[in-house]
Amino acid sequence: MLIKPSMLEDYARGAAFLGSGGGGDPYYSFLLAQAASEKCGDFELMPVDELPDEALVAPCGWIGAPTVSVEKLPNGKETVAGLKRLETVMGRKIDAVMPIEIGGGNGLAPLVAAAELGIPIIDADGMGRAFPESQMTILNIKGLYACPSVLTAACGATTVIETDDNHTHERIARSLSVALGGIAHMVEYPLTGAQVKTHAITGSVSAAIAIGRAVSHARKDGQDPFLALGEALEKTSQYPHCKTIFDGKICDLQRETSGGFSVGTATIKALERNSIMRVQFQNENLIALEDGKLKAVVPDIITIMDRESADTITTERLKYGQRVKVVAAAAPTMLRAQDALKFVGPRAFGLNFDFHALEELSSSEPL
Amino acid sequence: MLIKPSMLEDYARGAAFLGSGGGGDPYYSFLLAQAASEKCGDFELMPVDELPDEALVAPCGWIGAPTVSVEKLPNGKETVAGLKRLETVMGRKIDAVMPIEIGGGNGLAPLVAAAELGIPIIDADGMGRAFPESQMTILNIKGLYACPSVLTAACGATTVIETDDNHTHERIARSLSVALGGIAHMVEYPLTGAQVKTHAITGSVSAAIAIGRAVSHARKDGQDPFLALGEALEKTSQYPHCKTIFDGKICDLQRETSGGFSVGTATIKALERNSIMRVQFQNENLIALEDGKLKAVVPDIITIMDRESADTITTERLKYGQRVKVVAAAAPTMLRAQDALKFVGPRAFGLNFDFHALEELSSSEPL
Repeated sequence: MLIKPSMLEDYARGAAFLGSGGGGDPYYSFLLAQAASEKCGDFELMPVDELPDEALVAPCGWIGAPTVSVEKLPNGKETVAGLKRLETVMGRKIDAVMPIEIGGGNGLAPLVAAAELGIPIIDADGMGRAFPESQMTILNIKGLYACPSVLTAACGATTVIETDDNHTHERIARSLSVALGGIAHMVEYPLTGAQVKTHAITGSVSAAIAIGRAVSHARKDGQDPFLALGEALEKTSQYPHCKTIFDGKICDLQRETSGGFSVGTATIKALERNSIMRVQFQNENLIALEDGKLKAVVPDIITIMDRESADTITTERLKYGQRVKVVAAAAPTMLRAQDALKFVGPRAFGLNFDFHALEELSSSEPL
Repeated sequence: MLIKPSMLEDYARGAAFLGSGGGGDPYYSFLLAQAASEKCGDFELMPVDELPDEALVAPCGWIGAPTVSVEKLPNGKETVAGLKRLETVMGRKIDAVMPIEIGGGNGLAPLVAAAELGIPIIDADGMGRAFPESQMTILNIKGLYACPSVLTAACGATTVIETDDNHTHERIARSLSVALGGIAHMVEYPLTGAQVKTHAITGSVSAAIAIGRAVSHARKDGQDPFLALGEALEKTSQYPHCKTIFDGKICDLQRETSGGFSVGTATIKALERNSIMRVQFQNENLIALEDGKLKAVVPDIITIMDRESADTITTERLKYGQRVKVVAAAAPTMLRAQDALKFVGPRAFGLNFDFHALEELSSSEPL
């Protein structure tokens, strides 16, 4: 399948939704991909089953605080520089790239390198959404190694990390992202084709495109984009449940850049009821509470969207006064398994309760 | 010349003095070198003029807060692992090692690898003393590149840094040292033999051994070790001036581990006069003020020593109540040049005045 330049906007829209508020600003990744497509034409999206088992696949994306990413722009050469450096470390060519996380700008991050190096992007990713920390990828959950990894920064600095402990890797990489100005490009978890097939979240790139396309079409046709979003999600194999869990106005916002993350809470007041939702985030939205009651929690996807246009508002774009709907979607099954929840469930974020699936939470009253 | 195991104690003693209070605890480096010598025998100390111009020389040492280094011990394999990794990055064998700074434990840091790899240690270093930051080496002042550099940590993690900006390199390396637990081994500023001859501080290893030996002999013979220290320094070509600038008891100590450094101030009360000296440090002692008047300032060496034994007390070993003498020595001429003072003079440490040479400061009254 080809990703034509005309499809990039839908791709960015779908990735933005799947980012659960994070994964970096999709607009910049869209612009970079668009610029690349002007030079190189279409992008090749390779289904996982066409990937040779012995291929070398490089997952990549940006690490840092999304709040920084919208002010400190990339130089555009980080991705290719990182991939080239990984090739020298591994002593072989990279055959394909893949988003480390489909969510947000990172869902489109590998496109630039794919175009410039003339290699395909694999229809899969390492998170099925976006998560704030590197070891939250399904690849770590399944026991694969993050290293060798390569960080590259806008200043031209390159760093190669080698450790067999993926938590240490995250600590090193996070600290580097701060030293490099708050944001850096990272190539990590180099995989064989066989590992992609067994352990990655497959089909997520084409799912993002389909979701984005459904919302765009609905808007063009004057139909309810939220309805279209729900229907599109239900058609994917990865995200079969979706619910609008709140409708209101942002009445308070606490957000700071701390330890290399954007952390904070958005408080949303219902428009025509006496009710408050609090959405807490660490780069990504982690938990949504309505009047103290749980409505959705990580790893399920929680995305705050403009209530008219259904444009995703990533955490770094949240502002006082925005009229929003909060939409939640079930995470891919692999992320809800017990082995995964240790890494990506509420307790992994310091929240003191167990995961509850979106579709089992009782708030069935329509909002 | 051979460095025999019996000379290691003098070497450590001399390096400790030249550390200006920093460079890491010399005792641990001494123990590691002693353990290495038990396996490998003598160490080969190569004078700079025997070094082939095209040789590859790897300066190395530890980066981090000395306060951490005395609690978090190395695993002993960091140095060799770092050198081996640099060899793969550079695609050739390392011919010799050299201390990045002669001062403190770092003066002895390359011995382990020299013994294990069977290569000589060069009689030179990159600082002529110890400094807290990587870009304060004479090699940076002379326009050489810190990268490629390799950091290795006790946990086994390895990081390769590549940037052509030496200040960025310091920022990255410092941040990594914190992420790796507060201390890491670093191989940096890989040099050709020709560069060592032109730009390094030469003769500093043999100077450290001679200084340490003089103090040891004086103590053994029941003579004044401070007198012996001064005479030994005057015989070197690098450190021709020396002065005991204070004699007293530590009556206050402020010290914290911050941003990867040990920073603080020691306040010393004169024993038989009504006078106070304040010594301010950032890993190394930077400035000594007696009743507010300047007595010595970086890059000149300021070392606090036990007033009986003339053992150097590094900044991490300072304690309330210690009876001490503060001894200052002129820095090597290269460090006092205008091009160097920009990087290692008082203003480089945020102190708002110009450098004044120790021998020009007027406090000629004997203490």
